[in-house]
Amino acid sequence: MKGSRPEPSGFKPAPKAVVGRVSLYLRQLEVYQRQGWATVSSSQLGGPLSIKNAQVRKDLAFFGQFGHPGVGYRVDDLSAAIRHILGIDHDWPLALVGLGNLGRALLKYRGFRSRGFHIVALFDNDPTKIGGRHDGLVVEPMEAFGAVVTSGKIRLAMLAVPADSAQRVADQVVAAGIRGILNFAPVPITVPPQVNLVGVDLSIPLENLAYKVQRTEDEDSCAGAIERGASATDRVR
Amino acid sequence: MKGSRPEPSGFKPAPKAVVGRVSLYLRQLEVYQRQGWATVSSSQLGGPLSIKNAQVRKDLAFFGQFGHPGVGYRVDDLSAAIRHILGIDHDWPLALVGLGNLGRALLKYRGFRSRGFHIVALFDNDPTKIGGRHDGLVVEPMEAFGAVVTSGKIRLAMLAVPADSAQRVADQVVAAGIRGILNFAPVPITVPPQVNLVGVDLSIPLENLAYKVQRTEDEDSCAGAIERGASATDRVR
Repeated sequence: MKGSRPEPSGFKPAPKAVVGRVSLYLRQLEVYQRQGWATVSSSQLGGPLSIKNAQVRKDLAFFGQFGHPGVGYRVDDLSAAIRHILGIDHDWPLALVGLGNLGRALLKYRGFRSRGFHIVALFDNDPTKIGGRHDGLVVEPMEAFGAVVTSGKIRLAMLAVPADSAQRVADQVVAAGIRGILNFAPVPITVPPQVNLVGVDLSIPLENLAYKVQRTEDEDSCAGAIERGASATDRVR
Repeated sequence: MKGSRPEPSGFKPAPKAVVGRVSLYLRQLEVYQRQGWATVSSSQLGGPLSIKNAQVRKDLAFFGQFGHPGVGYRVDDLSAAIRHILGIDHDWPLALVGLGNLGRALLKYRGFRSRGFHIVALFDNDPTKIGGRHDGLVVEPMEAFGAVVTSGKIRLAMLAVPADSAQRVADQVVAAGIRGILNFAPVPITVPPQVNLVGVDLSIPLENLAYKVQRTEDEDSCAGAIERGASATDRVR
């Protein structure tokens, strides 16, 4: 990045929630880029995401000074800066472990490639899956993991393995020198401090949805009760 | 819930980030329940999740008063209160639309059932999939959606359909009276305001991981540079 150097070294890492919102800002900036916008305000950036403009400014200020007084944010510059901050201004080769339904779904997931994440190696320990071919890649046995990730300079691994083998597989990929693990198994795993771990628990968004639906229904039933109350009063009157 | 009534009606809904963290607190409380703990402090609750105790207290205060002076939080009570807040103190029947790899992976996902989410109906519009049987359920055509969700009192739908049919399928499930949609297609969809929508973008946790790994490597290379600098100095001296 030219201009403001985002995230001077020594800064503490941004909380996960901030990084998550910055990912959303990038997606919204890309919408504006496709529509040909040159600049946006924090309200225009946060509005479609239901994020307040003060939050947008605070989140971005975590990484540097990106706004221009009287202009707002330059769409192309901010988009490039966020890609740099997130580390997705370059490609990341990925190893995928586990070629069950979830693994095969992840392999076809369109959202990864457009963000620079390329699955370049497949692994499984099931003899019926080893040697199988998916999207031009051959499934290799876990014994080959170390050699493949070293020669391919692969630093990230996605684990789409059953819950009861997640920790064992994590230990194997850590031993092979993997720096970051995205764990889709619905169990917590532990890794040494020098390895970064992000767990994806698919029931969390579902709980968020249940919360929202329940709230809407509570409000509806309150509104209904008030209406019924009002009609009762009408009848008495 | 007896005692403190969480979330008096009229309260504004909690932000998604707060609800997400509350889901994590519940998971940590369940760990403590299995270990037989009776009470926990906010530090004990947040610590294993790398969430500061002030944040834990602030998040929970959004929904009511749960702590007891000199005691902390009662594990069983807080766990029950959170389940009530999230609306998962009762079961939710779910419809799953799309029986591709992702749909079949979601059907087998262990994390849903333990949270009270039960997939009870399957739909697809692919004639080769309709009539197929998975986990004791038969895949039905989308034309049957309205009748099935009405008779089964199903209010939530998970969409695991290709990006280019996501909006059309969303329109169909909305027309059938679904109250909440969990969208796994990597495209934004729009729904009327009375329908709740949560999108799951699997590239967001991957971006979070890339950010963390890049930061670790930046720190390592700085440390390396300092070490190399130090040895150079040593040699000069």
